[in-house]
Amino acid sequence: MQSSFRFINALKRQPVDSTPVWFMRQAGRYLPEYRAIRERVGGFLGMCKNPEIACEITLQPLQRFDLDAAIIFSDILTIPDAMGLGLHFKANEGPHFERPIRDKAAVERLAIPDMESDLGYVMQAIRLVSHECRHRVPLIGFCGSPWTVATYMVEGQSSRHFSVIKSMMYDEPETLSALLSKITQASCLYLQAQIANGAQAVMIFDTWGGILSPQSYQRFSLSYMQEIVHYLKSRAQTVEIPIILFTKQGGQWLENIAATGCDAIGIDWTVDMAKARQRVGHQVALQGNLDPAVLYAEPKQIEANVKTVLTEYGSGSGHIFNLGHGIYPDVSPDNVKAMIEAVRRYSPAFHSKGNEHGSL
Amino acid sequence: MQSSFRFINALKRQPVDSTPVWFMRQAGRYLPEYRAIRERVGGFLGMCKNPEIACEITLQPLQRFDLDAAIIFSDILTIPDAMGLGLHFKANEGPHFERPIRDKAAVERLAIPDMESDLGYVMQAIRLVSHECRHRVPLIGFCGSPWTVATYMVEGQSSRHFSVIKSMMYDEPETLSALLSKITQASCLYLQAQIANGAQAVMIFDTWGGILSPQSYQRFSLSYMQEIVHYLKSRAQTVEIPIILFTKQGGQWLENIAATGCDAIGIDWTVDMAKARQRVGHQVALQGNLDPAVLYAEPKQIEANVKTVLTEYGSGSGHIFNLGHGIYPDVSPDNVKAMIEAVRRYSPAFHSKGNEHGSL
Repeated sequence: MQSSFRFINALKRQPVDSTPVWFMRQAGRYLPEYRAIRERVGGFLGMCKNPEIACEITLQPLQRFDLDAAIIFSDILTIPDAMGLGLHFKANEGPHFERPIRDKAAVERLAIPDMESDLGYVMQAIRLVSHECRHRVPLIGFCGSPWTVATYMVEGQSSRHFSVIKSMMYDEPETLSALLSKITQASCLYLQAQIANGAQAVMIFDTWGGILSPQSYQRFSLSYMQEIVHYLKSRAQTVEIPIILFTKQGGQWLENIAATGCDAIGIDWTVDMAKARQRVGHQVALQGNLDPAVLYAEPKQIEANVKTVLTEYGSGSGHIFNLGHGIYPDVSPDNVKAMIEAVRRYSPAFHSKGNEHGSL
Repeated sequence: MQSSFRFINALKRQPVDSTPVWFMRQAGRYLPEYRAIRERVGGFLGMCKNPEIACEITLQPLQRFDLDAAIIFSDILTIPDAMGLGLHFKANEGPHFERPIRDKAAVERLAIPDMESDLGYVMQAIRLVSHECRHRVPLIGFCGSPWTVATYMVEGQSSRHFSVIKSMMYDEPETLSALLSKITQASCLYLQAQIANGAQAVMIFDTWGGILSPQSYQRFSLSYMQEIVHYLKSRAQTVEIPIILFTKQGGQWLENIAATGCDAIGIDWTVDMAKARQRVGHQVALQGNLDPAVLYAEPKQIEANVKTVLTEYGSGSGHIFNLGHGIYPDVSPDNVKAMIEAVRRYSPAFHSKGNEHGSL
């Protein structure tokens, strides 16, 4: 089986020859060849906005490793940047917005960006990558969840206690809802355009949904992700494209996430993969969930932990091997190689004939 | 009913007139009278080590608010400090150890501190507070979970990815287990001594258990907390003392936590209180779980959110009202007052006659 089918087939829970593998932030800081480009080009946002550079960075991990998917090198904050909030990245401090959103008037002033002009650099990068790897592996497009994007837009930067957006959530929920609706509208068009330009699967990163209570998560994060899922699933050009939802620390809410109609759920390493499959494996594929810190260990331990994840999921399709969160910047690429090789070595046994449709 | 019985009775799931309330870090930075002492005395550790000051700080929130428990002003790192690791607190950076534990030889060199000499300042503070508030409210003693304390001892400071201790966990689990056993041994004696000196309930803070996989949590965090529970429950002088376990982000493992034999589980705000009660309410009391960020909102919203937590738990004893995590340092004491008053106003209805034994 060609690798280009393995990832998509697993997302659709159709038979595969082995478990597909890719990992979050696979194009990034842990790679010396990425750091070399960054040294040369400068700022992070500048690299995202240069389609040739973004394409080159996207392809770097594929040249080094035997991976089953590419993910476009970009950032979850391209939408608010295109909305004119004045995004810049300070070294070692993360994102800053010059003009954060603090009231209803500011929300009302926000315009939905045009996907081909304001965000054309993302589309061009996707076209370049698609051209390069269409016959090799599928390309994943992505956006942040509306809630996660809103946390940065309202706080203006990374936050520890999320005091500004949570004050808005508790005191002025209508203002927050209006903001989330605008981001949702933009995200629908954004993913639709990424698909039109060549993305063959899409993922929504909900980095901060896990800081909410169950009720707030449902109302302020999941319901907007669900809107995006419904938008894409109700259009002929996008209905076949698999959608992966990933809420970090969302292990308590897998049933709710599966009920959105997404194709797969990304799960972090605090979730028991076997129990997760019992809970939602009849509805969705599961992506994950090796502790990224396992990559600090010796190759022998990495191999053992990969086997544990594969064994927990068990036989049959519907599993995409991944880390439970983005790779840490200080791990060795050799250890990444050991992880991927272990998936290649041990996963075919879980897809032998007779096991193809899974046995729980 | 005297307040001094309300907290203990709720922990034992015996009838109470209203839901007891206290909150994590109630003695601390959000109080101007605390900041005044800190300005005067200097460093955080110096305040912990001065029994008169620690007593004064412990009592501050009780002078301001109508609370049902006091918790001794101290720190979870007193044990490794007493083991000679060279603890100091840098402003805005958290704890630093001069001599972190990195190998088996260092673990073997660690001696169990003497509770009355090395940690006598904690015992003296407890005796002072007990003397002051014995007839008013119970005093809670505490320690960190062995895993959580070990993260600081091994990393040497606060950590983002816990690369050093996780490398040890994956590559040298026996070294980590030896370290955890030593901390556990010290923690058993430490809580026993706190009880002997006047603590009427104890709590184990597992701040970092939630960063582990389910298997690692069971093996490296919960099993050591369980050892402490068994130690205290097997001795005549401590068997009656209620024990509260709190693993931040431990919502997926409530059944396992309840199975340790503890009396109550602290839960954070990502957990649905009604479901938590269904899962483990027949075995343990539940403490929590208002989102601490609710205290950034207007008093009207605080009141509404307090009512939601009380309603989710429902009728009958076994609930101790608390935040889902330590109070944030930048909230207004007026908002804290609004929270406590809302508990006083709305909770008696959940304890009216006929409802005393709870109905799930």
